[in-house]
Amino acid sequence: MELDVKLDRQSKKPLFSQIAEQIVNDINLGVIKQGTRLPAERKLAKSLSVNRSTVINAYNELTDRGYVQSQIGSGTTVTNVNLEKEKEDTFVWRDLLSGQAESLINPYNSALKELLSERNLIAMDAGIADPDHYPKKVFADIAQEILLSEGNMLLQHSSPQGLLSLRESIVSIMKARGIHSQVENVIILNGSQQGLDLVSRMLLEPGDSIILEEPSFLGAIDVFRTYGVRLVAVPTDSEGMVTDYLEKAIKRTKPKFIYTIPTYHNPTGLSLSLARRKELLKIANRNHVPILEDDPYGLICFDNQSLSALKALDSTGSVIYLSTFSKVIANGIRLGWMVAPPELTRIVVAAKQINDLHSGSFIQRLVDVYCRKGLFEQHILDIQGKYKLKRDTMLQALAKYAPEGMSWNTPQGGYFVWATLPEELSAIKVLEEAVNNKVAFVAGPVFYLNDNGLRKIRLNYSYVSLEDITRGIKILCNLIENMKKKIAKNRVFEKEYLPIV
Amino acid sequence: MELDVKLDRQSKKPLFSQIAEQIVNDINLGVIKQGTRLPAERKLAKSLSVNRSTVINAYNELTDRGYVQSQIGSGTTVTNVNLEKEKEDTFVWRDLLSGQAESLINPYNSALKELLSERNLIAMDAGIADPDHYPKKVFADIAQEILLSEGNMLLQHSSPQGLLSLRESIVSIMKARGIHSQVENVIILNGSQQGLDLVSRMLLEPGDSIILEEPSFLGAIDVFRTYGVRLVAVPTDSEGMVTDYLEKAIKRTKPKFIYTIPTYHNPTGLSLSLARRKELLKIANRNHVPILEDDPYGLICFDNQSLSALKALDSTGSVIYLSTFSKVIANGIRLGWMVAPPELTRIVVAAKQINDLHSGSFIQRLVDVYCRKGLFEQHILDIQGKYKLKRDTMLQALAKYAPEGMSWNTPQGGYFVWATLPEELSAIKVLEEAVNNKVAFVAGPVFYLNDNGLRKIRLNYSYVSLEDITRGIKILCNLIENMKKKIAKNRVFEKEYLPIV
Repeated sequence: MELDVKLDRQSKKPLFSQIAEQIVNDINLGVIKQGTRLPAERKLAKSLSVNRSTVINAYNELTDRGYVQSQIGSGTTVTNVNLEKEKEDTFVWRDLLSGQAESLINPYNSALKELLSERNLIAMDAGIADPDHYPKKVFADIAQEILLSEGNMLLQHSSPQGLLSLRESIVSIMKARGIHSQVENVIILNGSQQGLDLVSRMLLEPGDSIILEEPSFLGAIDVFRTYGVRLVAVPTDSEGMVTDYLEKAIKRTKPKFIYTIPTYHNPTGLSLSLARRKELLKIANRNHVPILEDDPYGLICFDNQSLSALKALDSTGSVIYLSTFSKVIANGIRLGWMVAPPELTRIVVAAKQINDLHSGSFIQRLVDVYCRKGLFEQHILDIQGKYKLKRDTMLQALAKYAPEGMSWNTPQGGYFVWATLPEELSAIKVLEEAVNNKVAFVAGPVFYLNDNGLRKIRLNYSYVSLEDITRGIKILCNLIENMKKKIAKNRVFEKEYLPIV
Repeated sequence: MELDVKLDRQSKKPLFSQIAEQIVNDINLGVIKQGTRLPAERKLAKSLSVNRSTVINAYNELTDRGYVQSQIGSGTTVTNVNLEKEKEDTFVWRDLLSGQAESLINPYNSALKELLSERNLIAMDAGIADPDHYPKKVFADIAQEILLSEGNMLLQHSSPQGLLSLRESIVSIMKARGIHSQVENVIILNGSQQGLDLVSRMLLEPGDSIILEEPSFLGAIDVFRTYGVRLVAVPTDSEGMVTDYLEKAIKRTKPKFIYTIPTYHNPTGLSLSLARRKELLKIANRNHVPILEDDPYGLICFDNQSLSALKALDSTGSVIYLSTFSKVIANGIRLGWMVAPPELTRIVVAAKQINDLHSGSFIQRLVDVYCRKGLFEQHILDIQGKYKLKRDTMLQALAKYAPEGMSWNTPQGGYFVWATLPEELSAIKVLEEAVNNKVAFVAGPVFYLNDNGLRKIRLNYSYVSLEDITRGIKILCNLIENMKKKIAKNRVFEKEYLPIV
């Protein structure tokens, strides 16, 4: 069937919701009948000149609202719409939503949801710490101790900026990253995700631009997108963000800030070189653009030559620094922090108070006591050794099993190996095949703003056991090898039987 | 001195920051010299035709930025501005801030900050639970138990919507409020404050209107203000929001939602009558306006005739319901929840994920196990009895010590007695005097959008000990009596010695 969809590319309403809405109207008007099969996603995308993902989002929304159902083999068909109308709740929210809500109707980030379901596969797609290293016993002891000895304080309100004693512990941790901060400049957050959100909220207006290196962290991209800003990508090479492109991008787009993960980058695992760090700061300062430095992996280094944070080089107070306990202790505790210049600190603390008053006092003090007993420092040394061993295991497996044409980097810290598939292989196709074989990773395109990274894959070694790393890489490499052979065979076949026209 | 300040009332920039900025400019240009005494707040307010609070905010900002200092007796004087320039951080954030940040530069809500400082006074200004009832020992036991038996799950990521098992516990708690919800419609939050913020974020755009009853909860007013919306007040009487005014206000202002605390209101302690509840829902539905119901005190009832939540009467799915464990277990745990219609739930969960991924898994499970052991139910019965006793103690002390002309209500639940001072007494003046006598309460005006509530005071009985309630009310009533007498005496004096002109 043909759909009668007209797109207004000037409208603030996202294209996918324009598509969904017009289909809903036509269904409600009876123009599209129950049982009708909607056009294939690819076909509709082509006829409307939009990305396939736009149509997928539109169809997902129709599915969520009960207008259509999808089944492999029979495509997307219009359901019995009366069912929808028979629901008790009749209040329609759609026309009351804010711009931010519109951007979240079909959230881009479903990573977390998927991660949590029981999957029974080798999860090299995770971005999470090894549960074997969670300090369960120690936390149990400390929890008991502090609830009994200082429970009244622990369960009471505390400062929106965070417990003073935990901020002291963080000031001391920060020295390992070359940062000499003061408790006044530290803000405790529910994970650094909240920092990304609060900084965005305090600096961004719809229509603003921000610059980020490409590829970049999906969770950050998701946050920035909700603020209706233009995301400007600067490419990376083996030394991190290519600063040569930066100044031109700044002049052209006047960004509100530059977002960067300079150390053990997600997804590439690489670090920005010292020369580039200085260059980045120089260019940013010259143009009066602040930098948002995301440093969740900085403490997980595998050699003694780990570079200091960008913030350590910041002499003007233009760098906002974010880090977190979640990636190094345990993801579920949701405890991160910001180190910010005094003027911005005051404003972000006010925003934190509006957002959720303050972070939980109990968990803050639990982690604080863990630090004060010297256990955090010990834990960091411990996971540095263990994750290094895991990285080595993954690199060895890759060296042993990877087919010709596949390449990868050697991260000096963090969680990830970033690999490139042999030519003609698509990361998304390989992922489909891998999941069928009970192996998961993240396909490159999600880390890019445009349709790049098609042959890139992110392999996590922190979460998976040593045995599973070797087994998983072997399975993955074998299937890549097979897919490669199949393509080569098809190419030969095509050549031999090419009809003469 | 005269200041040369020009206000642009069309500008998006708040008036106070326009005033502050022009003074800063003049100081930097040398037009205003070091040591200059700025005009008195009242005088400047009059000459610029603005509220005095606007000038106070402007002066506060100048103080924060180091341009002026205030001292009782010598007013507000310009400091040695070079000090400011000698600071290491030279990056200027001011011109990069969003509209939301502008609204937070001088946060209205300093209540929390003050509450936390050591004060050594009878704190009837608190809005917090009695620390004597915090379940410290029980929490210590459960924490130990669950960290050892299911630590891997507790410290791992969990759903942005909240732990399924805690949502089950909440569904069961909700029955006590007459609400038959499903786990799919419950969202776990870091306190209901986060719910206020996320709902605002999903529904509000600058320039929108919302309706709320007056007086109302300060923390909610603070959140709504940051979204740049118009706050429309509907008055209350002894039956809660006066619904007769509601429809007219809706027609006139087309609000995005109606915010209400229908049960054991903060600050008035009163509840919306059943007739009014039905009327409110009818009017809201007829006009397609959703209701945001804030119900932090609903479980703290002193009789068996507590009214069901508004949400219990909601047949169209237009009511968003918020409640919290913070007010009934302990404020510092930051754990609240929302019950929302399905369509909105999906969007708010996506916003929660953007905001901070999810609430801490450990504290969620801790409270969940506390509920599952039947301890929460028992705790509620326990605090109902204890807070009722405290309320009675406060009412008895008021009956015994209050001077003529002072009146108060009798709350059937919650945390607060709402009192009216004798004529001619100002709540703010009485508060100053009370704090000098080591007694604190909240003065009425902060709960109003305009200059109302001048003789109202909010007295909290949940936090203070029984002895301190009696002692505090006695001190307070005595000083009110004295202030009353002084006024009467002055009046007599004025009459007797009135010069004949």
